[in-house]
Amino acid sequence: MERKIYLEDIPLADAWDALKTALKEADLWDQAPSETIAVSEANGRITSAAIWAKISSPHYHASAMDGFAIRASDTVGATETSPIILTILDGDSEPAVERPAKPVNTGHPLPSWANAIVMIEHTQAVINTDRQEAIEIRASVPPWHHVRPLGEDMVATELVLPANHRLRPVDLGALAGAGHATVQVYRRPRVAVIPTGSELISLDVVARNSLKSGQIIEYNSIVLAAQVEEWGGLATRWPIVPDNVEFIREAVQQAVQDHDLILLNAGSSAGSEDYAAHVVQSMGKLLVHGVAVRPGHPVILGMIRASADHSIPIIGVPGYPVSAALTGEIFVEPLLAHWQGQSAHQPQKLEAKITRKIFSHTGDDDFVRVAVGRVGEQIMATPISRGAGVITSLVRADGIVRIPRFSEGVDAGSQVAVHLYRTPAEIDHTIVAIGSHDLTLDLLAQFLAQKTGDLRLTSANVGSLGGLIALRRQEAHFAGSHLLDPASGQYNLSYVRRYIPDENIVLMTLVEREQGWLVTPGNPKEVTTWADVVRPDINIVNRQRGAGTRVLLDYELENLSIDPERVRGYEREEYTHLSVAATIASGTADMGLGIRAAARALDLDFIPLTQERYDLVIPHVHYKSDLLGPLFDLLHDAKFRSAVAAMPGYDVGLMGQIVEQAA
Amino acid sequence: MERKIYLEDIPLADAWDALKTALKEADLWDQAPSETIAVSEANGRITSAAIWAKISSPHYHASAMDGFAIRASDTVGATETSPIILTILDGDSEPAVERPAKPVNTGHPLPSWANAIVMIEHTQAVINTDRQEAIEIRASVPPWHHVRPLGEDMVATELVLPANHRLRPVDLGALAGAGHATVQVYRRPRVAVIPTGSELISLDVVARNSLKSGQIIEYNSIVLAAQVEEWGGLATRWPIVPDNVEFIREAVQQAVQDHDLILLNAGSSAGSEDYAAHVVQSMGKLLVHGVAVRPGHPVILGMIRASADHSIPIIGVPGYPVSAALTGEIFVEPLLAHWQGQSAHQPQKLEAKITRKIFSHTGDDDFVRVAVGRVGEQIMATPISRGAGVITSLVRADGIVRIPRFSEGVDAGSQVAVHLYRTPAEIDHTIVAIGSHDLTLDLLAQFLAQKTGDLRLTSANVGSLGGLIALRRQEAHFAGSHLLDPASGQYNLSYVRRYIPDENIVLMTLVEREQGWLVTPGNPKEVTTWADVVRPDINIVNRQRGAGTRVLLDYELENLSIDPERVRGYEREEYTHLSVAATIASGTADMGLGIRAAARALDLDFIPLTQERYDLVIPHVHYKSDLLGPLFDLLHDAKFRSAVAAMPGYDVGLMGQIVEQAA
Repeated sequence: MERKIYLEDIPLADAWDALKTALKEADLWDQAPSETIAVSEANGRITSAAIWAKISSPHYHASAMDGFAIRASDTVGATETSPIILTILDGDSEPAVERPAKPVNTGHPLPSWANAIVMIEHTQAVINTDRQEAIEIRASVPPWHHVRPLGEDMVATELVLPANHRLRPVDLGALAGAGHATVQVYRRPRVAVIPTGSELISLDVVARNSLKSGQIIEYNSIVLAAQVEEWGGLATRWPIVPDNVEFIREAVQQAVQDHDLILLNAGSSAGSEDYAAHVVQSMGKLLVHGVAVRPGHPVILGMIRASADHSIPIIGVPGYPVSAALTGEIFVEPLLAHWQGQSAHQPQKLEAKITRKIFSHTGDDDFVRVAVGRVGEQIMATPISRGAGVITSLVRADGIVRIPRFSEGVDAGSQVAVHLYRTPAEIDHTIVAIGSHDLTLDLLAQFLAQKTGDLRLTSANVGSLGGLIALRRQEAHFAGSHLLDPASGQYNLSYVRRYIPDENIVLMTLVEREQGWLVTPGNPKEVTTWADVVRPDINIVNRQRGAGTRVLLDYELENLSIDPERVRGYEREEYTHLSVAATIASGTADMGLGIRAAARALDLDFIPLTQERYDLVIPHVHYKSDLLGPLFDLLHDAKFRSAVAAMPGYDVGLMGQIVEQAA
Repeated sequence: MERKIYLEDIPLADAWDALKTALKEADLWDQAPSETIAVSEANGRITSAAIWAKISSPHYHASAMDGFAIRASDTVGATETSPIILTILDGDSEPAVERPAKPVNTGHPLPSWANAIVMIEHTQAVINTDRQEAIEIRASVPPWHHVRPLGEDMVATELVLPANHRLRPVDLGALAGAGHATVQVYRRPRVAVIPTGSELISLDVVARNSLKSGQIIEYNSIVLAAQVEEWGGLATRWPIVPDNVEFIREAVQQAVQDHDLILLNAGSSAGSEDYAAHVVQSMGKLLVHGVAVRPGHPVILGMIRASADHSIPIIGVPGYPVSAALTGEIFVEPLLAHWQGQSAHQPQKLEAKITRKIFSHTGDDDFVRVAVGRVGEQIMATPISRGAGVITSLVRADGIVRIPRFSEGVDAGSQVAVHLYRTPAEIDHTIVAIGSHDLTLDLLAQFLAQKTGDLRLTSANVGSLGGLIALRRQEAHFAGSHLLDPASGQYNLSYVRRYIPDENIVLMTLVEREQGWLVTPGNPKEVTTWADVVRPDINIVNRQRGAGTRVLLDYELENLSIDPERVRGYEREEYTHLSVAATIASGTADMGLGIRAAARALDLDFIPLTQERYDLVIPHVHYKSDLLGPLFDLLHDAKFRSAVAAMPGYDVGLMGQIVEQAA
């Protein structure tokens, strides 16, 4: 088997320079060609040339009000006590009367003999001495009063909009008003998105039970195509191409004919079936293979020959979904922007305090996804899982912290610059929960979004104790906790007093829930009690230190005088109920302690052992805040309570009750 | 002629309440119905229900690296000096050898007997003692090393996304990864946009010379439809309906059948041909006629009966383009947002110093368009023309300052909150020019945008003196000025010393340009010299006090000992060369002093009189700044210089030369 293991480590700026140089050589560093489209279809498009007014607007002196066109000089001397009478004209003829007044509506042209408008509200209908219809006015009217002069809005030849301007609805109005029915905009760059990989399954054919081990749902092409469209391009998604050099070459050959850019995903790394670099080399020029950014490292940049004198750029996009999406942001967006006369997108930046230490690969620029929330006056950024395969880390990310190469990371508590995915207003509407995970929090997030439209609940799962420590550091609005005190048999209170002694805390019950053994379906090992944990034929999966469930297990082991060292798998730690369940479902452990809902979620059997209380620990200052109000209201909402009660093993009898308000 | 002049003045909040109450009564205050669409088509749409993971991702333990699947226990004790040899397995069978290693690529499933991955880079190909292919490793591998455990990204049943979430490209990836090929989103609200008015001409049929006085290009429906689409709705634009009650009723009757909202534009005021209120009343219920906001006052809110038990809302949108666009923002956006489970758009706010006093209608909420720029450390907001017919005031606006009703306006220099149309980063990339207008500034703005992609030049026309005063107040980055000193015959320098004595100023020439009489085409009055200004058969149009052109005229009148009182039209002031030209083109003045380019723009004749110098007055601190650098570079750019030189009456010989750097 042939294995290539060579991958370079080119700094981001150098990689960009290489691409830019190649594009310049190929005459592709200019803006995209123009096309002419109807103004009514042009919203969001970008002007490729300046637009100058063809006509003035208004193109005549226009009445700005409903009223009468008059001569200002005819009104001189009019007062409350000596009104002046003007005779109403019929038709468009030149006035034969001495003091004419012509009825006009807003927008009507000013007759050539008139030079002012009097509003209808400032007139009184009368009959003049010749028994003609007339109006009486009781104040003089200055010249040009209530007249919109020719060119008030735009004068012919004036600049209406410059080139490189993204058209907004009002811009379309200005273009039309200036006499333009069409407008020149950049043609949208055409981007081919080619997914490759024999292990890939198209989303269209996925059904829940049809997925086999090793098969991967192909969705990078969906993400990349949506990114391309969002950035003004036109994406063409190719069907999945198997890992076969000839098939890949064929797809690239098709794409090169009528596209401006090819995104080849993936095969850009150095595995036995990574053909992208080879394909690029054989069909054009390989510029860069491997860029010093994480995630995203195995990026390929190259040029593909379309004909003797025409090449187009190709980007080999890594296969991991986070790497793929970030490669889009780092390479595709700036290129599409440039072609459309725009600067690369500059995300808004926000200073925040990082809650955990970030270690960094010294040789790479590191793009760390963070959740961001404002807790009191301080904005907190919490790093999210860094696995390049965890697309939800991008979904949950509120922004990115960039750790430059050759730095050694960032210490907890440091101020960092976050490149935001959201607006600061959205950050301000975010409730930050940290601590033990419970499915009820997911439901709470869901109901909050549904009810308020703009309030977000983000929760980080660090276990009950981790949550209390985060509260002490003022990193969250509340923590979920289910910590049993072995001495008192009580939940949470003694821990809160020990870990957050100086804070005025409200302890409020969220739910009570069953804890028990999650076991392989059918319970083949016939587990029934706590004591089964020590059987030699049983391998468990455990929760991490500081998790309430771990405290519960340790408490029961102590009661039964079982040395944890005798428990097989005790050291294997997972961070959530669901990941414990997933481990058992995969067959690599026989059982683990957890909640019934997690067993149900993964079709495991459940052996109930006890019921525990899960509380919210809330600093009093947040308990009273407007931000959290709607969340507490939900705990008394009948629909929400019944949604929670419908989950197996959940009891909402105590929901929303205050256990204690510690001073 | 029947004239209705009654219009109410209902506060914005009350108007909203009336609409909301009516919508609730009609069961239309719920979110829009859902529809199910392909995930690949769902970018930008809004989830109407929470989405929970159907499958875990990965749905098996997956290799996170290219390398070999192994048993961690087989590697215990491996070191540099005592390597351990693992035999490479062929095929998928259960391993018959003692220490197996199975080649895997990233994403491949972990064989059931394996529990770790060793990276290919950490192995050495060897042949074992049985002459089989093998690998040698020189360090032990911990269990689960480089394994992506089942559910690392998402575990089945977990919340993937809440309801009311606007889908982004990465969200599509998460949905697909969770096993969803389709997603439930709100159906896009269907909005009928009906333009009415016998004076309206469709943009499609407009040609430059075909427009007659009184005809207005219809573009509100284009702006409203683009707004609707931008806010997630589906707009249907109706053909123009003439001012005829029956025709309007018919259009509304058609629209009511398959739309969720009707925008009827205009006829919402109280003129003789304003039928909207009458139509709404006769076909349903008129809720509000007249809202206390400016611009936008004559808004109609009502309900139209579709059938015995179904009505839909209608908004009568005022005809003035600024009023129409703001009615969209104030009424249509919040309604569409609500139907799609979103809060109304909250523009970002920025504190700024207002540069001019704003007077306000006491009874109305006043929406004042402002241009915003950062000059040094201070953010400046300059009010733009307030005419409701001036669509360019919205095009040029960087934001809105809301003056609440019953306040009396805002004094110059006060801090105000600006609701931004742009990002703060865009504001930071804005060069603020103020002072005399010259067409070269339009070209400069155009070239800057083209060259830099993100640098904007905004210019406010307040005349040369106004610009110097603005500089003294530190409200602009530079001022354009062409002020002739009557004593010395020099341009600008003495004025700069008098008006900005304390600032270190750079004076740089932009252009030299011809000044002369703009006269009616054919020069019927046979104008030839300065002295013609005082002829009794000649009416002039003048520039405003403080304009360089006005100073020039006054200087020549003084030379000729002509009393301004003897000049007909001397008191009629316009603010730009082009508006002077427009006044002459409209036939209401015979001539005015101005530049040749303005004459050419409106097909006037031009009688040259003199050449003048137009300089940029730049505080030294801005002259040295990075922001203005690209602008000064342009003055030496050959393409820019020839574009300016191509304008009639312009000389670029001195362009970019520094006249003086005053201390």
